Amino acid sequence: MERTIKGVCDGENGEGVRNCHCVVALSGGADSTALLLILHYLRQRLGLSLSALHVDHGLRPESAAEARAAVTFCHALGIPLAVHTLTVDELAAVWRVGTEEAGRKARYDLLAAALPSPAADWICTGHHLGDLAEDVLMRLVRGCGWPALGGMRLCDPARRILRPLLLTEKDRLEAFLATLGVSWTEDPSNASDTYLRNRMRHGVIPLLTAENPGFLDQVRDLWQLAHIDADFWETRTAATLSAAPASPSHVEGEASAPHDAAHGAESIRLPKTTLTGLHQAERLRLFKEVLRRMGEGQARAETLLALDAAWVAGRGGTRFMFAGCKTATVRRGDIIFSGGPPAEDTP
Amino acid sequence: MERTIKGVCDGENGEGVRNCHCVVALSGGADSTALLLILHYLRQRLGLSLSALHVDHGLRPESAAEARAAVTFCHALGIPLAVHTLTVDELAAVWRVGTEEAGRKARYDLLAAALPSPAADWICTGHHLGDLAEDVLMRLVRGCGWPALGGMRLCDPARRILRPLLLTEKDRLEAFLATLGVSWTEDPSNASDTYLRNRMRHGVIPLLTAENPGFLDQVRDLWQLAHIDADFWETRTAATLSAAPASPSHVEGEASAPHDAAHGAESIRLPKTTLTGLHQAERLRLFKEVLRRMGEGQARAETLLALDAAWVAGRGGTRFMFAGCKTATVRRGDIIFSGGPPAEDTP
Repeated sequence: MERTIKGVCDGENGEGVRNCHCVVALSGGADSTALLLILHYLRQRLGLSLSALHVDHGLRPESAAEARAAVTFCHALGIPLAVHTLTVDELAAVWRVGTEEAGRKARYDLLAAALPSPAADWICTGHHLGDLAEDVLMRLVRGCGWPALGGMRLCDPARRILRPLLLTEKDRLEAFLATLGVSWTEDPSNASDTYLRNRMRHGVIPLLTAENPGFLDQVRDLWQLAHIDADFWETRTAATLSAAPASPSHVEGEASAPHDAAHGAESIRLPKTTLTGLHQAERLRLFKEVLRRMGEGQARAETLLALDAAWVAGRGGTRFMFAGCKTATVRRGDIIFSGGPPAEDTP
Repeated sequence: MERTIKGVCDGENGEGVRNCHCVVALSGGADSTALLLILHYLRQRLGLSLSALHVDHGLRPESAAEARAAVTFCHALGIPLAVHTLTVDELAAVWRVGTEEAGRKARYDLLAAALPSPAADWICTGHHLGDLAEDVLMRLVRGCGWPALGGMRLCDPARRILRPLLLTEKDRLEAFLATLGVSWTEDPSNASDTYLRNRMRHGVIPLLTAENPGFLDQVRDLWQLAHIDADFWETRTAATLSAAPASPSHVEGEASAPHDAAHGAESIRLPKTTLTGLHQAERLRLFKEVLRRMGEGQARAETLLALDAAWVAGRGGTRFMFAGCKTATVRRGDIIFSGGPPAEDTP
């Protein structure tokens, strides 16, 4: 874990935690407790300032006692702690999502709000190698391209999230705490198979680990390869897009196609000249990057492939629908991505 | 499945099955029975000639009856059939591998020997989408980079293997046979969890399909993305290697390093000039391609990453060991890959 923390400190993705503030998401489990302690021990060397945030989800009778334990622990370390109490069931109803998703979203909202300077400081979470393995499997199940299949990022500068323990086994964190005589709480909901993540942890991962006791090492290698490829494709698509301006602008020269006006300022055009000569692998990454720049919502591989097939065949007219109300249409060899809901064609 | 067969006929990887001979590996299960029938129905349109090969592994009491059923079936279709009887247990002992692996190897050896013109004809196997899903999971478990993680190839020109049903669900094959009133045999060893493949089929895949009933569709998409990326990287590494001669030749100019002589004609040097300026993702693919050209044995991601780190740091001296008795060493900014067992350094 030292190497990972050092990697982050030395500037994972060109950034680091040195001389900034870290807000640690402290559940009281082994992972976040170990993370807070490690950062506490490193704070002087790294010039860090630290605070913690504990969220009482109000879903279990023990949660109030766990919040008090977090207060005691942070008080002993001299780390400021904020405790927030949520009623996750209500949020889930309001947001129309499951309780797992509502808790996650509310937690990250609170963490982001707790950053003293949101553009420079970091939210630190205790995600470890076991979490990464679950994430890879969940991505495999729901359908995920490459390099996204390699799992969550160690450092997400846009969301200001750091996961310094992402490549560390949970066993090592527990051993570290045991050596120090520090106790932690086991969230009983971790044992429940209500949540997809837990079903991966209890059902699938033990089967895969039985086949290869080094399965988690393979996940770590896969993550590293994905991390390298992500950088390759990000660099490449950024260079292609900056060389050939697929700039977010009005669709020009389309006066004869009045139904295009609705695309307005939210359209991005990938001109034929940019697309021609690119390998299919590059075109697909370019589509993904354009869609990513247009907002949230994961593009389905199937739709990306269908859009590409239409472009190759020079087949205009079909409007391809992507998550987040984004669309794409082939027109005269260009591809026009549009951000809003699809415009109604005038009769 | 029509689309897949058509894809192969139209020249998957620039080759096709038109006007050539196909030897079908006929186990008598639903998949190979359906494959033989489909190719039989298409033979005139494609100008194919067909034969079949059945291997009696001699592992089960029913196997002789199954061989007779294959004879009857092929006789009715007018397709020449060869039946070979193996004693897989003995081969496994001789080759020092498991019976699953011994049966597979012996089967492919027999199939390759049955090709009338080994450079032009095809071995056709009944692998389907369920087999592909198992393969992806087995590759995930044992640790596999990208694009290899996407699973076995539909067309392997080097080994002359075609898998025309690779993207077709087994259910569809069974429905096809049921519609025609054709029966098939269920290999009872498919129900056994002695084999890794079966444990994936019975243990892991049902759990993943329970989370997403469209899991097999995701596997198909992943395979397609991997296929595209494989072509991208193959094209790219071939261009890099042909532009900068990493030719299989004696290590030149190393007169002052006598222990290099042992590398002899089996050394391939990647010169510093070729490596400099490449992205890490490209270097790793280049290493893999050089190792692939040097013979069998899968390169471990961990070792490839360690070799790359040594090259980046300009750290010579360490000899990195790869499967198949291949090694790599950094020397003066070049990387020298060597085929034989490592040479003994002279004292």
